[in-house]
Amino acid sequence: MYKQKFPSRLLDDAVEQIGMLPGIGRRSALRLALYLLRQPKENVHCLTESINRLRDDTKYCPVCGMVSEDGLCSICSDHRRDASTVCVVESLRDVLSIEATGQYNGVYHILGGIISPIDGIGPSDLSIDPLVSRVESGGIKEVILALSTDVEGETTAFYIYRKLEPTGVPVTAIARGVGFGDDLEYTDEVTLGRSIADRREFKP
Amino acid sequence: MYKQKFPSRLLDDAVEQIGMLPGIGRRSALRLALYLLRQPKENVHCLTESINRLRDDTKYCPVCGMVSEDGLCSICSDHRRDASTVCVVESLRDVLSIEATGQYNGVYHILGGIISPIDGIGPSDLSIDPLVSRVESGGIKEVILALSTDVEGETTAFYIYRKLEPTGVPVTAIARGVGFGDDLEYTDEVTLGRSIADRREFKP
Repeated sequence: MYKQKFPSRLLDDAVEQIGMLPGIGRRSALRLALYLLRQPKENVHCLTESINRLRDDTKYCPVCGMVSEDGLCSICSDHRRDASTVCVVESLRDVLSIEATGQYNGVYHILGGIISPIDGIGPSDLSIDPLVSRVESGGIKEVILALSTDVEGETTAFYIYRKLEPTGVPVTAIARGVGFGDDLEYTDEVTLGRSIADRREFKP
Repeated sequence: MYKQKFPSRLLDDAVEQIGMLPGIGRRSALRLALYLLRQPKENVHCLTESINRLRDDTKYCPVCGMVSEDGLCSICSDHRRDASTVCVVESLRDVLSIEATGQYNGVYHILGGIISPIDGIGPSDLSIDPLVSRVESGGIKEVILALSTDVEGETTAFYIYRKLEPTGVPVTAIARGVGFGDDLEYTDEVTLGRSIADRREFKP
């Protein structure tokens, strides 16, 4: 089964492993392996150590599900943040994207995925019940749904909305519309249509 | 000095380290880090182990300078290969490219670089003296220069040629010309000019 391609088993293994990373083909993997071979040992160990530590020592916040080094994450434990506003997102990636805007001062709730019957992911596979308990336990004034706009995202948003309805806590969704700098001509009809329906008062 | 960008120091470190690899920007580094975070621990350890072993355990062939696990490399120790023909290349990468063609059955000599006064690389920084000793020690019938065609490559080729001249061993260079599938219209003048000067008998 195993076909040796390079004249060194070590190089072969490294290229094989690096090439399994997403977006890195065999050619790039070889380029990276040859690069690492030329680097000082300490630099290479620094890289592998940081990857091992990331995987081994990362813990998850018991409240929002974000990465944390220990116990509560840096956002949940930050008292300057508004703990009464919870933004529901699919993954850690979305938290980082929203944090990068600098426009949000509330806290988060990471679902860990999206309802997708095709992929066999149901509500019980996601952190939806913990979200409901979190809202039920009080102190939350608004739940913002920041999910993708595809069918799965809409389904998940609707499911969460129905689950949270009995709590009486207002549920909002992030605004959809034509992006800044986007040309109307090249905006798809659904987005443009919704952006007209969701128009708001012009405040210069 | 250090600016924390992500809500976890571990993630921060990993992105920083992965982002130092050539051709991988911060965005790709984050994508890779988040991917690794989702993988089983064993897979991640497999990756980092293979990288560490590549860097720590790789040895270099005392004859040709190629990577080897121990002692002579797999090419120099292969008795089916013609040890009387030595192909001189700049780096390991070139060996892999030539091996991939399946057209060469001789052995190699890796210079470990190219003469480049701008980068402060002189003949003494390269494995040129070992090449001369190797040829002088006998048993070699042909030295093939497979170096790049830029000024540095030509300089290095000329330097090696002058050094090997006293040994009387024939020195050849790989053929230059219009590549297979290349359009004459889009071939640069130097290549096209040389391909006409170096024309050879047409044997259908």
